[in-house]
Amino acid sequence: VTPEELARAAQAVLPADVYAYVASGAGAQTTLAANDAAWAALAFRPRALAAAGPPDTRTTLLGTAVATPIGVAPTASHALLSPEAEPGTARGAREAGSLYVLSTRSSTPLEEVAAHAGPWWFQLYALRDAGLTRELAVRAAAAGAGALVLTGDTPVLGRRERGSGTRLLPPGRGPLAVLGRDVDVRAELLEQDPHVGWDAVGRLAEASGLPVVVKGVLRADDAQQARSAGAAAVVVSNHGGRQLDGAVATARALPEVVDTVGGDLEVYVDGGLRRGTDVLRALALGARAVLVGRPVLWALATGGGDGVRELLTGLTAELALALQLAGCPDVAVVPRDLVLPS
Amino acid sequence: VTPEELARAAQAVLPADVYAYVASGAGAQTTLAANDAAWAALAFRPRALAAAGPPDTRTTLLGTAVATPIGVAPTASHALLSPEAEPGTARGAREAGSLYVLSTRSSTPLEEVAAHAGPWWFQLYALRDAGLTRELAVRAAAAGAGALVLTGDTPVLGRRERGSGTRLLPPGRGPLAVLGRDVDVRAELLEQDPHVGWDAVGRLAEASGLPVVVKGVLRADDAQQARSAGAAAVVVSNHGGRQLDGAVATARALPEVVDTVGGDLEVYVDGGLRRGTDVLRALALGARAVLVGRPVLWALATGGGDGVRELLTGLTAELALALQLAGCPDVAVVPRDLVLPS
Amino acid sequence: VTPEELARAAQAVLPADVYAYVASGAGAQTTLAANDAAWAALAFRPRALAAAGPPDTRTTLLGTAVATPIGVAPTASHALLSPEAEPGTARGAREAGSLYVLSTRSSTPLEEVAAHAGPWWFQLYALRDAGLTRELAVRAAAAGAGALVLTGDTPVLGRRERGSGTRLLPPGRGPLAVLGRDVDVRAELLEQDPHVGWDAVGRLAEASGLPVVVKGVLRADDAQQARSAGAAAVVVSNHGGRQLDGAVATARALPEVVDTVGGDLEVYVDGGLRRGTDVLRALALGARAVLVGRPVLWALATGGGDGVRELLTGLTAELALALQLAGCPDVAVVPRDLVLPS
Amino acid sequence: VTPEELARAAQAVLPADVYAYVASGAGAQTTLAANDAAWAALAFRPRALAAAGPPDTRTTLLGTAVATPIGVAPTASHALLSPEAEPGTARGAREAGSLYVLSTRSSTPLEEVAAHAGPWWFQLYALRDAGLTRELAVRAAAAGAGALVLTGDTPVLGRRERGSGTRLLPPGRGPLAVLGRDVDVRAELLEQDPHVGWDAVGRLAEASGLPVVVKGVLRADDAQQARSAGAAAVVVSNHGGRQLDGAVATARALPEVVDTVGGDLEVYVDGGLRRGTDVLRALALGARAVLVGRPVLWALATGGGDGVRELLTGLTAELALALQLAGCPDVAVVPRDLVLPS
Repeated sequence: VTPEELARAAQAVLPADVYAYVASGAGAQTTLAANDAAWAALAFRPRALAAAGPPDTRTTLLGTAVATPIGVAPTASHALLSPEAEPGTARGAREAGSLYVLSTRSSTPLEEVAAHAGPWWFQLYALRDAGLTRELAVRAAAAGAGALVLTGDTPVLGRRERGSGTRLLPPGRGPLAVLGRDVDVRAELLEQDPHVGWDAVGRLAEASGLPVVVKGVLRADDAQQARSAGAAAVVVSNHGGRQLDGAVATARALPEVVDTVGGDLEVYVDGGLRRGTDVLRALALGARAVLVGRPVLWALATGGGDGVRELLTGLTAELALALQLAGCPDVAVVPRDLVLPS
Repeated sequence: VTPEELARAAQAVLPADVYAYVASGAGAQTTLAANDAAWAALAFRPRALAAAGPPDTRTTLLGTAVATPIGVAPTASHALLSPEAEPGTARGAREAGSLYVLSTRSSTPLEEVAAHAGPWWFQLYALRDAGLTRELAVRAAAAGAGALVLTGDTPVLGRRERGSGTRLLPPGRGPLAVLGRDVDVRAELLEQDPHVGWDAVGRLAEASGLPVVVKGVLRADDAQQARSAGAAAVVVSNHGGRQLDGAVATARALPEVVDTVGGDLEVYVDGGLRRGTDVLRALALGARAVLVGRPVLWALATGGGDGVRELLTGLTAELALALQLAGCPDVAVVPRDLVLPS
Repeated sequence: VTPEELARAAQAVLPADVYAYVASGAGAQTTLAANDAAWAALAFRPRALAAAGPPDTRTTLLGTAVATPIGVAPTASHALLSPEAEPGTARGAREAGSLYVLSTRSSTPLEEVAAHAGPWWFQLYALRDAGLTRELAVRAAAAGAGALVLTGDTPVLGRRERGSGTRLLPPGRGPLAVLGRDVDVRAELLEQDPHVGWDAVGRLAEASGLPVVVKGVLRADDAQQARSAGAAAVVVSNHGGRQLDGAVATARALPEVVDTVGGDLEVYVDGGLRRGTDVLRALALGARAVLVGRPVLWALATGGGDGVRELLTGLTAELALALQLAGCPDVAVVPRDLVLPS
Repeated sequence: VTPEELARAAQAVLPADVYAYVASGAGAQTTLAANDAAWAALAFRPRALAAAGPPDTRTTLLGTAVATPIGVAPTASHALLSPEAEPGTARGAREAGSLYVLSTRSSTPLEEVAAHAGPWWFQLYALRDAGLTRELAVRAAAAGAGALVLTGDTPVLGRRERGSGTRLLPPGRGPLAVLGRDVDVRAELLEQDPHVGWDAVGRLAEASGLPVVVKGVLRADDAQQARSAGAAAVVVSNHGGRQLDGAVATARALPEVVDTVGGDLEVYVDGGLRRGTDVLRALALGARAVLVGRPVLWALATGGGDGVRELLTGLTAELALALQLAGCPDVAVVPRDLVLPS
């Protein structure tokens, strides 16, 4: 099944509004298209006669062993896609040996998701209610999350013109369903805090005892900030083209981040990665892992947790094939000169 | 409402000829398309975790306070678009806190427009009748214009192959309706004077007591000329692609003008700015403000002065959101490195 | 009438085979498309407030005064397009004050064409029959041609896959109708001579007493060869994309030729020039004149000699407008920095 | 007949599955499209007045005289295309004076093909059964092959999503029909050996007494490896876009290979060469010969061995024409500066 076929299959089973909400990007959707195009523009320079057998795709992410460098990006409200919701996604990822990054905007309480997950991390929006933010960090740690992923590109939501999701959410599946209880604080404090800065990294690490990953880094200077702030890793991300439309494609931003902090921090990337060859391009540019967003949701919509597992194992098989065809024996050491600049 | 939707709505309510007249560019419309494409080609490098609240979009233009750096470009014959005509546009701009630049080709006497306007400037074509040119400058100053905007790219009209406007103008709404009286000079003297040169800047400043802005600057050497001639500001403009087809996109010309005179003069830009993200791109390249042309006319056609207000406040809200997502707290200090070269 | 409208009008009145024969290029038609695109890719940097009145388009070509730098490129078999044939084209060019370059493949005897022509030159294919070649050169001089234009890019005909012209030619209008008499030499000797080299320039100049222009120069080294061989001028040309498909667009080749020999020889250009703004681009790159091919044939097909005149005067008016809008007072001194590199 | 017409004609006569199997590339077919586009992007700088008669296209490949530098690329299972199968292709190539490279995946025993062939080489996949690999090398030499072409880009098969061929193969035409006998080794050993490395070059040369050509080289460092390993030549190839999707277009990889080993080894190229002008581009970049894949199969499908001959003679005539139009007298010495970089 090709990425395009998977998206079409999801479109066929989902309400139009939900499909549009997930599929679309912000504004004129410039970044959405640029993400895809930037990977495709990177040409490979494969090695001949490399005498390499089937490669091993296993790696570690902040010390945690995973079967593949292809993980699940944090995305909101899986109950919109399937009654299995986040537990289904978590199970699929676990069965594929993939890292699962659970979103603050989970439609399922985090401990319930954790019960189905293999290695998982918790994506955190810093909320205006600092106590609630701290509660989430502490509970994620207690439930077994291996890291906190602090989203840095969403002081407020981007301008999304197409589709809607949240108003279709069933009762109990709202934007803070992750808490698993009714919250009686004023709604404003449940919103994301636009004033969150780099000091949040240390604060969250201290509160949770977990390493903190900063997601949404697109510049060398911000990567340095992340390192100075004590982040363990960064995710080069433009939020799948859903925040600032026009933001640089992640394939274009990745090299400067890797060149600046790659020796000290793990660098991951998301945005427009649709095939195993895209993953190989990301690894060649220095990413240690990639996160996949929309395709996971399409797989969840069409096949539940089983669909998620099949997607991730399929992508991993594609990656293994691409590695072998490129003459790369080791998923952790893909040389930069495997790709030509676009 | 997206820019494309607004244009389509206007097309639905306007005579085909009027729509084509406004929408089209000169010749093969190369510049018209290039203007749009050049903004879209500029990718953002947003800052993460910038700890910035909702930005303030207020600024000053030649010392005049405005609520937004998004102003109304001078465009002809608003009576073609709406019975509210220029007074409607002026009111909409005033209510949005935007600068309004009234065209010499206004279909309403300038004093009548001024009565409805907030901060406004007067765009001046130097006419073959020097006395009339002077009269316009003096009357604009008397009516409260804050500056004269001398158009420098229209010694004669460009080659416009599509649509027509002026022959549909109602009685009393002709090309010098701005005067508010019948003019009995020979028609030839009412035409624009192709022999107008840089000395006109000083002449008009002296006659009116107003600062003079030169519109239609696309080169560093012309920007220097403007400075030497005593201009207070320049507008990087190719007349919306309506004069010399093939003229460089304004996004491409803006940097050399900013680099040359940006320390001394205010630099504005128009052409193809359709979304708040485009405005942010212009600010990043060093523009202090932008002027919006066709969308204002579509808004006037579909919603009168209210439509103009809604367009301008909507664009300003988009700009504020884009600033915040980009991590820029200050509308007046948007760093150049926020955008990558295309 | 736009260039596209003119071509469509011609298509409507011509046999499909003739239209395709004229309109098409060789092979995959890569060069045909590249010629057009390369002009469009050159952006103008017009001057503001240039204080320039309507420009004078008059110039001289090898000392001959013409009303416009827009001449008629040599093209074959005008009898296919109109019963007026080459005399019609010659008259149209004369009435427009344009240079007419008559083709060896004229369907009318050269002296008969000369009788209707203003300033005209004769395009010469060196034939295998050297005597015949010489006869053509001598007769052209005697009939008043101002120069010989030796085509250097056609040792044999290119691979043309679309349409046909010559088999539709009426009796007496064949490939050597220019001679005005039956020729009884073996057909092979009537063919073009692939062995013709740079020494032909001097030979033809001596035989005719005329300056020799070499057409089909696309490289600096060939331009130097032309100068060394005694040529008076060169035409940067790829034969309208009808010879070697894939040959560089003329707009891309022109600068290296101008930079190398422009101080010594006049440099002209053809290929894809469809609007006055294209002509201005060519002048900015250093061409002293341009030659127009297909549009002249479409004009001849739709309007006879009158159509040719209207086309040439229309293009010249467009050029004058473009010069004025660009702030260029002088058709002979268009600065290189008027265009940005593509 | 144009390349597109030939492909359409084949599509009309072949089962859809077979057509898709041959026509398609791996994955998203990025490389398939890039191959074509990269040749088209190379613009020619032809010489004028080159005084060159019809060029001689004869050359030698590893010392063997051929009538043309255009050879037949190794492709699998010709029985799918025509009952004439590989003997038909071999005859067509022989009659055109072209090199024929027979595939290991021939659907006809190699000695039977050899009986119909002119100059031919044998493409070898190193199989897991080393004895069988050696047998093929020895038998190819005994049957008159002039060289072994070791494929270096296929440790395993690429991800091909469209069409199928092998399951439609008639009895006796399976993947090792080249052997001409039943093979009773375990199926696994018939597979290609992913562990084959550069040492295979020497081993095969020694076993067969033949020069060894390495096919699938896309990088300067691999070209150096080939030279060090004792290869006589390399083929710059991405397997027609059927192995690692995203692999660099061969036109883009060719220069670095030529620059590195072109003085010592012969360099050939395949991938996307469809017209004589494409071949000329390859020669200009330093290739000594080109190999043509899909068009040969379309010609075989539509015209059998005669069709193959006509294709190859037609392409050679196109090349000769292109050489003459470019002013290149010698097929073996086409200057690099005949093409501009893309």
